[in-house]
Amino acid sequence: MTSCGRGYAPMARYRAAAAEISAATAAFRGTWADMRHVGSGAAGRRNGGWLWAACTWLGWAMRITALAGGVGGARFLRGLRHHLDRRDDGPHDVTVIGNTGDDITLFGLRVCPDLDTILYTLGGGVHDGQGWGRADESHRVQEELLAYGATPDWFALGDLDLATHIVRSQWLGQGMSLSEVTALLAQRWGLPEQRVRLLPMTDTPVETHVVLAEEEPRAVHFQEWWVRMQAAAPVERFVVAGMDRAVAAPGVLDALREADVVLLPPSNPVVSIGIILGVPGVRDALRGTAAPVVGVSPLIGGRPVRGHADACLTAIGVEPTSAAVAGLYADFLDAWLVDPTDADVAVQRVRVEAHSEPLLMSSVEAAGAIAGAALGLAESIRTSR
Amino acid sequence: MTSCGRGYAPMARYRAAAAEISAATAAFRGTWADMRHVGSGAAGRRNGGWLWAACTWLGWAMRITALAGGVGGARFLRGLRHHLDRRDDGPHDVTVIGNTGDDITLFGLRVCPDLDTILYTLGGGVHDGQGWGRADESHRVQEELLAYGATPDWFALGDLDLATHIVRSQWLGQGMSLSEVTALLAQRWGLPEQRVRLLPMTDTPVETHVVLAEEEPRAVHFQEWWVRMQAAAPVERFVVAGMDRAVAAPGVLDALREADVVLLPPSNPVVSIGIILGVPGVRDALRGTAAPVVGVSPLIGGRPVRGHADACLTAIGVEPTSAAVAGLYADFLDAWLVDPTDADVAVQRVRVEAHSEPLLMSSVEAAGAIAGAALGLAESIRTSR
Repeated sequence: MTSCGRGYAPMARYRAAAAEISAATAAFRGTWADMRHVGSGAAGRRNGGWLWAACTWLGWAMRITALAGGVGGARFLRGLRHHLDRRDDGPHDVTVIGNTGDDITLFGLRVCPDLDTILYTLGGGVHDGQGWGRADESHRVQEELLAYGATPDWFALGDLDLATHIVRSQWLGQGMSLSEVTALLAQRWGLPEQRVRLLPMTDTPVETHVVLAEEEPRAVHFQEWWVRMQAAAPVERFVVAGMDRAVAAPGVLDALREADVVLLPPSNPVVSIGIILGVPGVRDALRGTAAPVVGVSPLIGGRPVRGHADACLTAIGVEPTSAAVAGLYADFLDAWLVDPTDADVAVQRVRVEAHSEPLLMSSVEAAGAIAGAALGLAESIRTSR
Repeated sequence: MTSCGRGYAPMARYRAAAAEISAATAAFRGTWADMRHVGSGAAGRRNGGWLWAACTWLGWAMRITALAGGVGGARFLRGLRHHLDRRDDGPHDVTVIGNTGDDITLFGLRVCPDLDTILYTLGGGVHDGQGWGRADESHRVQEELLAYGATPDWFALGDLDLATHIVRSQWLGQGMSLSEVTALLAQRWGLPEQRVRLLPMTDTPVETHVVLAEEEPRAVHFQEWWVRMQAAAPVERFVVAGMDRAVAAPGVLDALREADVVLLPPSNPVVSIGIILGVPGVRDALRGTAAPVVGVSPLIGGRPVRGHADACLTAIGVEPTSAAVAGLYADFLDAWLVDPTDADVAVQRVRVEAHSEPLLMSSVEAAGAIAGAALGLAESIRTSR
């Protein structure tokens, strides 16, 4: 199936624009809706090629939807934007569904590490060396907080970064949803201008907790395990507090159902992508979407480039290999991009189209090449259907 | 009446110490309680001299209670501590009842300007030049907040200062009272070591609002009038939102009733002292206390040394003179300290003991001399009773 959106605008502008829709445009949209109908389902899959070409010819945007965690996802998305900016096949709208399981309340402020890493990375404000947090950061406020004996002391919060948490907490406290807050934050970082829309996976507060494999099992917040314990403490299981009552945030399920391409960046398959997949309706939307779903392996030679994906996989009893990770997505994955290191083993074992490409995101250009390869896989699938 | 406290300790230490009270101490306290009884009421007023001398001889602390606003109050209190440290008549416990009508929620954080000014000034962290806020301050967080479009933009919040508001808001959010939070903040600033206890006037959130004298009267928060409008907009009246359900914070009324001396620093008589006097029970406690109540005029030659006390007085229809300010306290004031500039007029018109002393707090030493003069007035009243 090939659906073509008419571009997206952030909420406020969207509302303003919506008020201006003319009768002519409405008629035009009718045509577009018909085309969407034609392009849906199995027939659509087969007819995808001409419809996508038509969208491009008409100047409609290709809709790319990506699930994303923190650093790996953000760097992939920055590469994706870099790649898209250099294509000549019309505008592309990118919808990012961000993991909020990492979210934590520190010093009374709501911190959304993955969403912020994406905002800072796409907005040019990230500390490139560490991949998260702000460039040119200072820690004067946190030193004061510790002087007051405030806790915890194991989570670094820079001054510039704190402003994001303060304003988010202020707006949440005023009754805005996390989606609305995130859209406002994204304006400051120029995401609308980049045609990128960042959606939290859910507006329901959820938090990934880690049940430690100790004699007397106890649970700690994911961040405490990840940051303070450096993911070294043995894990019995991951539990997502609040997920039982979570609802996908507005636009999330539609972004998966109506996408032209769905991408899984090389984010942690357990505590980033895995958490997003646990949001009610997300996995079903991925199974049901007509868009090709292409994933990028987060492992190279069985090891994560950064982070502790191997420890997370081991914790849930999954072998830390590219092939095993693809297995976690087997019910909806159409293609899987692995590093040449893993090509022999992985490509043979994965029951989806696979392709190897150097997966080290050593620069924006390298990340762009990987994103381009993932899109290329998607396009070849679409054309062959 | 002359009561003598046995020193005070911050909450946690107080509780620990309380658990250790021995039978011997309890018996001793019985004696002390008897002495308090002897010293109360009109008889106590007359017998004050010998009892105070006895307290000093026994090494018990003299109890001084002060009401205080922001900069003027804080500088007076620092001078008072400076003066007391140089006396040889035993320890002195100072209880400060701080104005919380200035409190405001900014960026979702609870800001208590007057309490903080007192903490920073007594703790050595204040920006001496401006009299409020932190020395060596920066504004990186607020620049970010403004970049996000957060409001308001007219209230300066430094990075170091923000930490106080963050930790206060965190602790309030955890269910602590403002009194408990203030006691914890005070520990970091070393107030217990100085035998100074800072109490908010109430734990009930109250906020002074200003009804502007415009064609269509509207109310703004006191801070907006004071900071943004520089107290220049004509005032119809001041309203304290929340005061109708306010209760004096724990210890406030007792600190007035059981004091050996009550001092009114040269704080704003309308929006600082005046607000504290509006807390249910405070004015009655001042009328009823056996301690001499000595005030220091906030005006020199009819003008405030700083701030906008004259504008506030005019707004409530009171002449901006030292004598008129004393009139606001006439029902409980025992003595009034005025600047030599005002001696002729003020001292004649004030129906309380009056004394003139240079009132410009140009240094810690100068403030100390003023505090010493106020205490001297109190002592002479006590002795003459």
